[in-house]
Amino acid sequence: MTDLGKTPTRRELLTAIGMIGGTAALYQAMTTMAHAAETQFAGPPNLSGARKGATVIVLGAGLAGMLAAYELTKAGYRVRILEYQNRAGGRNWSLYGGDTYTELGGATQKVQFAPGNYLNPGPWRIPHHHRTLLHYCKAFGVKLEPFIQFNHNAYVHSDAFGGKPQRFKSLAADFEGNVAELLNKSIDQKALDATLTAEDRDKLKEALRDWGMLDKDMRYTKNLRSSEHRGFDRPPGGGVNGSPIPSEPFAFKDVLDSRIWTQMAFFMNYEFQTTMFQPVGGMGMIGKAFGAQVQPLVTFNAKVSKILQDKKGVTVSYTDTSTGQAQTARADYCVCTIPLGILNQIESNLSDPLKAAVAAVPYSNSVKIGLEMNRRFWEEDQAIYGGHSFTNQEISLISYPNFDYLKDGPAVLLGAFASGMGAYRLGGMTPEERIETALAQGSVFHPAQYRKEYRNGASVAWSRVPWTMGCCARWNEDTRKQHYQTLVGIDDRVVLAGEHASYVGCWMEGALLSSIDAITRLHKRALEA
Amino acid sequence: MTDLGKTPTRRELLTAIGMIGGTAALYQAMTTMAHAAETQFAGPPNLSGARKGATVIVLGAGLAGMLAAYELTKAGYRVRILEYQNRAGGRNWSLYGGDTYTELGGATQKVQFAPGNYLNPGPWRIPHHHRTLLHYCKAFGVKLEPFIQFNHNAYVHSDAFGGKPQRFKSLAADFEGNVAELLNKSIDQKALDATLTAEDRDKLKEALRDWGMLDKDMRYTKNLRSSEHRGFDRPPGGGVNGSPIPSEPFAFKDVLDSRIWTQMAFFMNYEFQTTMFQPVGGMGMIGKAFGAQVQPLVTFNAKVSKILQDKKGVTVSYTDTSTGQAQTARADYCVCTIPLGILNQIESNLSDPLKAAVAAVPYSNSVKIGLEMNRRFWEEDQAIYGGHSFTNQEISLISYPNFDYLKDGPAVLLGAFASGMGAYRLGGMTPEERIETALAQGSVFHPAQYRKEYRNGASVAWSRVPWTMGCCARWNEDTRKQHYQTLVGIDDRVVLAGEHASYVGCWMEGALLSSIDAITRLHKRALEA
Repeated sequence: MTDLGKTPTRRELLTAIGMIGGTAALYQAMTTMAHAAETQFAGPPNLSGARKGATVIVLGAGLAGMLAAYELTKAGYRVRILEYQNRAGGRNWSLYGGDTYTELGGATQKVQFAPGNYLNPGPWRIPHHHRTLLHYCKAFGVKLEPFIQFNHNAYVHSDAFGGKPQRFKSLAADFEGNVAELLNKSIDQKALDATLTAEDRDKLKEALRDWGMLDKDMRYTKNLRSSEHRGFDRPPGGGVNGSPIPSEPFAFKDVLDSRIWTQMAFFMNYEFQTTMFQPVGGMGMIGKAFGAQVQPLVTFNAKVSKILQDKKGVTVSYTDTSTGQAQTARADYCVCTIPLGILNQIESNLSDPLKAAVAAVPYSNSVKIGLEMNRRFWEEDQAIYGGHSFTNQEISLISYPNFDYLKDGPAVLLGAFASGMGAYRLGGMTPEERIETALAQGSVFHPAQYRKEYRNGASVAWSRVPWTMGCCARWNEDTRKQHYQTLVGIDDRVVLAGEHASYVGCWMEGALLSSIDAITRLHKRALEA
Repeated sequence: MTDLGKTPTRRELLTAIGMIGGTAALYQAMTTMAHAAETQFAGPPNLSGARKGATVIVLGAGLAGMLAAYELTKAGYRVRILEYQNRAGGRNWSLYGGDTYTELGGATQKVQFAPGNYLNPGPWRIPHHHRTLLHYCKAFGVKLEPFIQFNHNAYVHSDAFGGKPQRFKSLAADFEGNVAELLNKSIDQKALDATLTAEDRDKLKEALRDWGMLDKDMRYTKNLRSSEHRGFDRPPGGGVNGSPIPSEPFAFKDVLDSRIWTQMAFFMNYEFQTTMFQPVGGMGMIGKAFGAQVQPLVTFNAKVSKILQDKKGVTVSYTDTSTGQAQTARADYCVCTIPLGILNQIESNLSDPLKAAVAAVPYSNSVKIGLEMNRRFWEEDQAIYGGHSFTNQEISLISYPNFDYLKDGPAVLLGAFASGMGAYRLGGMTPEERIETALAQGSVFHPAQYRKEYRNGASVAWSRVPWTMGCCARWNEDTRKQHYQTLVGIDDRVVLAGEHASYVGCWMEGALLSSIDAITRLHKRALEA
């Protein structure tokens, strides 16, 4: 397997181990080699030895479906994709000026963004540990740029401070400073004598002083030291008036009322840890790049109505929505990536347990609203470059564009990323009402500029997206236990793939990892047949 | 001043206030308008009414000198710059393949980086609140891209864990989790009953549970919840083996020994808070862009030897180092941006208090080492995209490139950013010894790849830089009190400018703010003359 004349690379070693010992051995080897913890991705699937002429029909030209088609074709299978829409990418999608979108209920929006601006209705950011997606982005030539997830200088808005937004840095600094002061006080009051050794107590006190920016009396107070974290009333400058003026920390009660720990914990979340990425030009560039790889295999405008498998293969009935004609397609096997809510409505002879699994998983809703503004006032007036300002209102956050910083001219900010009840309320509105709500709620952050600089907007409510009727699968502990293995298992000649068939739900990475796992098992099954 | 037919913009308002009430009124107005705290920059200086034919000689074509020349020329002054080097930019500087650099002591390095790669020996990152620099970057067409300052997935190395580096995210999560558990325990032991109300104690407990990822018993333990912050043994995946496996938190004793709070506090520091920027193509692009604006004004290769002022003007003696010829230049006024250690060696009739101030401020040292590697193993093998891995060794950190992510081919990482004693030790070495030290120390993070993938390197020890003999001015509380106002004050016809004449020391922003303040006062003095 490896050329004995040279030292095998890590990839070669892992491939060799994988072929001999299977996935468990591979995983153990990766763990021993000490960086398995980043990902379950171990390279593209190994599908060698495919039977000549074996055929697969893939339902859905989203990322899971296209990856399946790409890898199965490479392995020698004859593959065909049926796709409901007239474009590849599925939920990987960007809306640009000139695009038209009609939602369930009939409302049609014509997007008016200036050239270069866009809204990503679905996925919009890529964690650094989503290695499968990064691998294929590189392989398919998708150029990436940093997505600014964490911005100390953006705002947090809540009922605290009379509804006045505060900078994340000030609230977070004050939370940490107060926690440090209180824990130090507790140590002094001997509350932890039974828990920590004297040596560890001393180390902890030093840590609290430095991390919490406490003064020499171990208090968190107004001084240049605490201002180094929370910001200054007058920051350091040059010349005669160069000396800084410290700022006054907030009352701890107000800091608690702001619930700033929610955002602090959010930024520490595995899925949102830095560094994150986005494709240059919009998330939809990924769907387009995948689409370019499988383009000859796709039949667009194909509305699947029936999936029937028998001892020899799978027959899929569909309607060509551009002509209205009924069609059928047949193959030895089927990889079905249709979202569960849609699949649940399609006639099939899938097994009853699989049907029950498909029916058991609800989809979340979410609403995204893009607002085009005349200028980047958040940058020019408030020194916010990328990242999010959070609110406890329905819009949940506004997020600033992560490209073309400092540029003159119109820019699109994400004016809402609503979920839960907020998403249902916004989803129930007309597109015009959604924009109005986004402008009203977002104005708390930029009262002087928000309405004044507004040009136009677009929104997508996922509950009204005709081809998914929801955003993504929401498993819970019970449904996982009862249905997950059934859902991902091969049902005779059909296997499901997509973010819904993963533990990385609602992420493109989940769709890809699921797809690799599904086609690897399907290939094995095909070889056994 | 403002067109009464339309609402004045914020900038117009501030300019109007500034002209009527001066800086103090302006500052107060900005504070009231609630975003003064970002910067002392209030737009380019207003130097209207310059006397026709008035002349200024600027010493040094670093950022402070070039900004002074640019704004004074715009205002109508006749300006000339004398620069010791044969290029503009001063400490704003990038080294590219093909460049040659000779340090004090005589060692010459020929940089061998591949095209597109570079080392920034001096400044390398721009805080979002350095508004003066951002303003002129935009005005002069410097394209910026994000500098990844904060990377949860990079390493921290210390004597803890037997010297094995750990990911920042895991150490930080464990620090926060333990602090949360301990403070909650203290509350339960009534250590804070006298300090916090019952209501605030309840809110704080909720905060600690959510921020610290505590379990239902308010313990920080091994489970999927704590792994959401610290990372998984097996992260969530797709298909049959999709379920995640949690990781075991470190012993708190080891977390304390790692001193992780140092990095946690570092990332909360005002100067290092996100979002940060770097110019596309290297920091030196800024010096080049400023240089392009003032190019006709600059005399390069001019080594100043004497600065003499009299009642009518300032005479500067210098040697043209390309010909060896002695020259003089004369002007009504002089803006001197020469670094203090150099200025201290130049003959002058500056006042004794100013001379004492110039002599009183020591310069820090620092050493940067660029290492070109065959491939981006930190990205490919360890999922680190930009940011820094920290160590308590002399190199202090290694920093990963923040551009061309995922690209094949050689890339340059910063193999050392030493200061203090480490910088003096590295500065005392030959360039070859520095590289060897950087490779030896940096290998702790990437033992399998570091030496194997190394191609070539370059280093700059600021104590050996002929035109500064140090990195930047290091004021302390005493020298500020005794000398700062003298240093920035106008000495008859000479005013000093540069990062050393600011409270934003060692940053380009300090040089620019100092320059604006200096020429604004000089202009006022000139009008009074």
